[in-house]
Amino acid sequence: MIIMEKTATIEQINDVIDEVISFGLKVDVSQGEIRTVIGIIGDERRISFADLALMPGVKEAIPVEKSYRFIGSDFNATSRRIVKVRDAQIGGSEPVIIAGPCAVESKEQIFRIAKEVQTAGAHILRGGIFKPRTSVYSFQGLGSKGESEARKALEWLRDAGHQYGMPVVTEVRGESHAELIAEYADILQIGSRNMYNQDLLSRVGKIGKPVLLKRHFGASIEDFLSYAEYIAAEGNRDIILCERGILPVSKGNSYARYILDLEAIPIIQRETYLPVIVDPSHAAGRNDLIFDMSCASIAAGANGLMIESHYNPRESFVDAKQAITPDALKDIITGVGEINKIATKYRQE
Amino acid sequence: MIIMEKTATIEQINDVIDEVISFGLKVDVSQGEIRTVIGIIGDERRISFADLALMPGVKEAIPVEKSYRFIGSDFNATSRRIVKVRDAQIGGSEPVIIAGPCAVESKEQIFRIAKEVQTAGAHILRGGIFKPRTSVYSFQGLGSKGESEARKALEWLRDAGHQYGMPVVTEVRGESHAELIAEYADILQIGSRNMYNQDLLSRVGKIGKPVLLKRHFGASIEDFLSYAEYIAAEGNRDIILCERGILPVSKGNSYARYILDLEAIPIIQRETYLPVIVDPSHAAGRNDLIFDMSCASIAAGANGLMIESHYNPRESFVDAKQAITPDALKDIITGVGEINKIATKYRQE
Amino acid sequence: MIIMEKTATIEQINDVIDEVISFGLKVDVSQGEIRTVIGIIGDERRISFADLALMPGVKEAIPVEKSYRFIGSDFNATSRRIVKVRDAQIGGSEPVIIAGPCAVESKEQIFRIAKEVQTAGAHILRGGIFKPRTSVYSFQGLGSKGESEARKALEWLRDAGHQYGMPVVTEVRGESHAELIAEYADILQIGSRNMYNQDLLSRVGKIGKPVLLKRHFGASIEDFLSYAEYIAAEGNRDIILCERGILPVSKGNSYARYILDLEAIPIIQRETYLPVIVDPSHAAGRNDLIFDMSCASIAAGANGLMIESHYNPRESFVDAKQAITPDALKDIITGVGEINKIATKYRQE
Amino acid sequence: MIIMEKTATIEQINDVIDEVISFGLKVDVSQGEIRTVIGIIGDERRISFADLALMPGVKEAIPVEKSYRFIGSDFNATSRRIVKVRDAQIGGSEPVIIAGPCAVESKEQIFRIAKEVQTAGAHILRGGIFKPRTSVYSFQGLGSKGESEARKALEWLRDAGHQYGMPVVTEVRGESHAELIAEYADILQIGSRNMYNQDLLSRVGKIGKPVLLKRHFGASIEDFLSYAEYIAAEGNRDIILCERGILPVSKGNSYARYILDLEAIPIIQRETYLPVIVDPSHAAGRNDLIFDMSCASIAAGANGLMIESHYNPRESFVDAKQAITPDALKDIITGVGEINKIATKYRQE
Repeated sequence: MIIMEKTATIEQINDVIDEVISFGLKVDVSQGEIRTVIGIIGDERRISFADLALMPGVKEAIPVEKSYRFIGSDFNATSRRIVKVRDAQIGGSEPVIIAGPCAVESKEQIFRIAKEVQTAGAHILRGGIFKPRTSVYSFQGLGSKGESEARKALEWLRDAGHQYGMPVVTEVRGESHAELIAEYADILQIGSRNMYNQDLLSRVGKIGKPVLLKRHFGASIEDFLSYAEYIAAEGNRDIILCERGILPVSKGNSYARYILDLEAIPIIQRETYLPVIVDPSHAAGRNDLIFDMSCASIAAGANGLMIESHYNPRESFVDAKQAITPDALKDIITGVGEINKIATKYRQE
Repeated sequence: MIIMEKTATIEQINDVIDEVISFGLKVDVSQGEIRTVIGIIGDERRISFADLALMPGVKEAIPVEKSYRFIGSDFNATSRRIVKVRDAQIGGSEPVIIAGPCAVESKEQIFRIAKEVQTAGAHILRGGIFKPRTSVYSFQGLGSKGESEARKALEWLRDAGHQYGMPVVTEVRGESHAELIAEYADILQIGSRNMYNQDLLSRVGKIGKPVLLKRHFGASIEDFLSYAEYIAAEGNRDIILCERGILPVSKGNSYARYILDLEAIPIIQRETYLPVIVDPSHAAGRNDLIFDMSCASIAAGANGLMIESHYNPRESFVDAKQAITPDALKDIITGVGEINKIATKYRQE
Repeated sequence: MIIMEKTATIEQINDVIDEVISFGLKVDVSQGEIRTVIGIIGDERRISFADLALMPGVKEAIPVEKSYRFIGSDFNATSRRIVKVRDAQIGGSEPVIIAGPCAVESKEQIFRIAKEVQTAGAHILRGGIFKPRTSVYSFQGLGSKGESEARKALEWLRDAGHQYGMPVVTEVRGESHAELIAEYADILQIGSRNMYNQDLLSRVGKIGKPVLLKRHFGASIEDFLSYAEYIAAEGNRDIILCERGILPVSKGNSYARYILDLEAIPIIQRETYLPVIVDPSHAAGRNDLIFDMSCASIAAGANGLMIESHYNPRESFVDAKQAITPDALKDIITGVGEINKIATKYRQE
Repeated sequence: MIIMEKTATIEQINDVIDEVISFGLKVDVSQGEIRTVIGIIGDERRISFADLALMPGVKEAIPVEKSYRFIGSDFNATSRRIVKVRDAQIGGSEPVIIAGPCAVESKEQIFRIAKEVQTAGAHILRGGIFKPRTSVYSFQGLGSKGESEARKALEWLRDAGHQYGMPVVTEVRGESHAELIAEYADILQIGSRNMYNQDLLSRVGKIGKPVLLKRHFGASIEDFLSYAEYIAAEGNRDIILCERGILPVSKGNSYARYILDLEAIPIIQRETYLPVIVDPSHAAGRNDLIFDMSCASIAAGANGLMIESHYNPRESFVDAKQAITPDALKDIITGVGEINKIATKYRQE
């Protein structure tokens, strides 16, 4: 929609119309007493609104279409998507629980955790093999030790999950190991730091396996969905969106790592038909907030949770302070199951 | 705590010690092989850490004490505070519900809403008379029409609340009408925009009535609590803290007015003994998010909710888009009551 | 401007038109093939756009007018305002330099600093008497010791400034001492924390002396200007706007207190006719950045600088780490004078 | 540095010491009257501070080392690095100017622009071939049309630059085309959205050509430098850091795309020995701010500028509104050259 200045001349209006038409689009001109408004008919994404805004006589040029189409509610208004992975379902009436350690450290570790989180009620096993880290000097996961180590760790993860009836998810940190991971993992995770990496998104989109996409800590909801569209544009609609906290705006002490944006849950569920889950572990960065934030996330309507869990949080190589024990996990899973029932009941009324 | 450089000389160390002692404090010197660390014994708030940091040989000067003392958990570790106002309690085992219109508009309006929100289950009646507004050209509340109009509106609010068994809360926007409002209202509200107004905080602190303090949308939790201390420093501990959303960090479209920071609930409950409530209406700015954010807030452990409610949201003069009907309010009150029971049960285990 | 849905009925369009007319306004209807757009003729600030947006058939309701009118460029397009205070001018072709200590501490201190900053080239003397502080336990300025102490300090400040030919500016922290300060100070400063305190803004607006308004660290430019309008709406146009840094959005170490937003300089100069100055001292919070940020501010077109200066930064009671010596101040004043000439020359070409 | 609780037992202190020693490090114990502080001797990056913080008796565990070592000032305190590329120098006494179109569109376009920006005084030619875009539906650059198109555009860019004596820089958007671009470009650019893409950083680090790394719009300075270290850790120290604006924190209208953080210039120059440049075009997103922000950047001490320039801004495919003409570029180059001289002169005094 192009809003002309009050003082725009007929020539200027015609120039704008010609410009729009030159892109193979049509116009819908509304001539008022005071202003003229030119609507665009056709796929407005073929045109540059920044260009139009610079033309003489133009007051404002506003795109009406969103940059997410395939994942937009409009595209599939009839039903929400349920992403099915082996025996698990993300997006159904029950919240799905993804649990496991931050990093896969050894065969024993991942099998023991798999058993314990499954007993606690988890549905999907997580475990990092290629770890993104702020410092190049930090432990980057077993995947960084070369392909044979990476394959070994991927096998452990897959076997541990499947032995206990859980599909597995692990992070794809770079393009070069996307296919390698896809040989083993049931769900490919794109981490927060790579949300804006469009080449990686297109690559995992093409692979076709379900993708769990985490919101960047500096991304608006609009950016989050626009980048999810890169996956969808490859024909892959098995996308699980994950809120994991955004940057705080403050000086001085901070008491949590990121701000968990729970309004994003109902907002995204109105904007798209995709399931949305929450990762309270990375948002809080401290395990004494996990219970409360898990309850809050499900009460807000989230389709599931991704929680770091370790039999001995202190022993884990990475992010020790944010993992919880399988016992604590069990209380959360039971609690959020009941909360989900109540919230669903009154939400529908 | 003052951490000296590795290269600090004995003279430099002694200078720092002398400086600390000159403020009537004592020191605790830890001499390591490599570094010296000087602890401060006594009330370190009497000294300037910025000054100390500038002294030769000093690497870092870190205050250990917090700028909130009277409201700190340490000060009253044994029990959480229950603020009692007439028949209502904030901070007890049940979530308290504050409801009512954004602005008091007429006697009929406030009595009708009082009746309806009380029927829906609300405990406290809210209604703005002095409204802070971004634009000087917007409606500023009946209070802006002079003292006699203000008194009339305050009477309506008080009478409407008390007739239906509810204490009332209204905002004190400036120092000049603090005492006027205190003649009528049971709870004095300080709005988000005035959280940093220390003269106003001291003034309402002195009055002695319970104060509902809203977090500024740009305030860290530390700032929020440091300013609440201005009220407590006047001897008033009946403080109700209210999270109402903080600034989003993003460009482009935003889908909600502010980001609701629910991690702040458990964090503040660990840092202080004061009750914390949530105002989802102002955070979201759109009424279709109120249900989900109310459930999430209580699931996160909030001690109550403050919700804008109007029999006909479209008719209200201010912030129409964020108010909900008494019917919708009733569903929320019932839902959050049940969610509170579950979350409390599993939280304690 | 109200944009109707494609599916809006004639009745819905007429309802919206009736609603607008009921506020005493006129409409300008643009009927396109696909959509109808309703323009509002008259003072659109009398109507609630939130209300309109809720009406059936309405897609979007967009205010076109800004909430700053009296200070807007449109209002006074012919010339920029030069605020004249005694012998100083803010907004002319030369950058104005406001310098002095964070807080007035003693007669000797303020006279000595006055002399030194005047020698260094400063035009206006600053000095805090009522200090806003984050912690209630920090030094709040001599003004907090009662009226007679406040008057004494105000006299020192005024006499020191005037003796050396400089008008003086000091902060009004609360409504109750606005008139007291106005008896002595030439310019009334409203600090960052009070930018949203509309009652205080109206109060100093009424007094009629020039007002130096600092941007809140969480305020958008739009909010900044909308609140400046509270002063202008009282008939006072001698407003000096001051950028002093906004909140950083980041976790982890921060290397400066606030982010200095220098784009705000040319933006505000396009949006209004008021002078804009920069306070690099409070933005940086460390004196080794003051030179660079002063040069950058003037190069960006700022009309002046406000710099904390003290003969012995380490000795000052408040914010020691950010003050600079009069010698350093002199280099800055000379440097920015030359930079201003170059930037002005090439800007005009 | 590990600060123990006042109440820590000898056993707890010994446990912490044992833990540190188990990583092959040594300790420096400072025993005060009240507290014990344990310093770590050796490369503390081998240990998890999050782990240590969880041990009984530990109050705080603070890393003292930074996660940037090879690029840190300490590493090369004697001199600042001058990155030499063909005949251009970045980091010397003169500001370097990188100019050119947002995207390479045709042979004619890039040759014409090369000629014009060289005449205006630019030293390095820029031009995007693989464009990162928020919307998958936007033009992604000629590189997205397949390898042969990409090679053709790269040849145009290289030949245009070299014909007019300018080295060329273009963005590497994904791992899969890093080596391809390195065959043609003199400097490899990593865009803002990929700053956190550590696999890509390591990849371009290995190639060995100079890298221009843009700060992510949500990155703290600490994160920016920590990720630059990924390049340096591959042995590549020819790194040019580029500030290009960070996220605004505000609701409501925004008048510029990002906030340009010019304090980052002197801060980074103190923290590292690398050159820092500024891209005002992407920060502002509107060409009427480019002159002022260019002057401000150089006045703040930046080592250069990266400016979008096009003979006909309106005709460019991407980001039309932010490009300036070669004539406007010339004024900037002359102006900032003079400003640089003045700022350098007074900075040194």
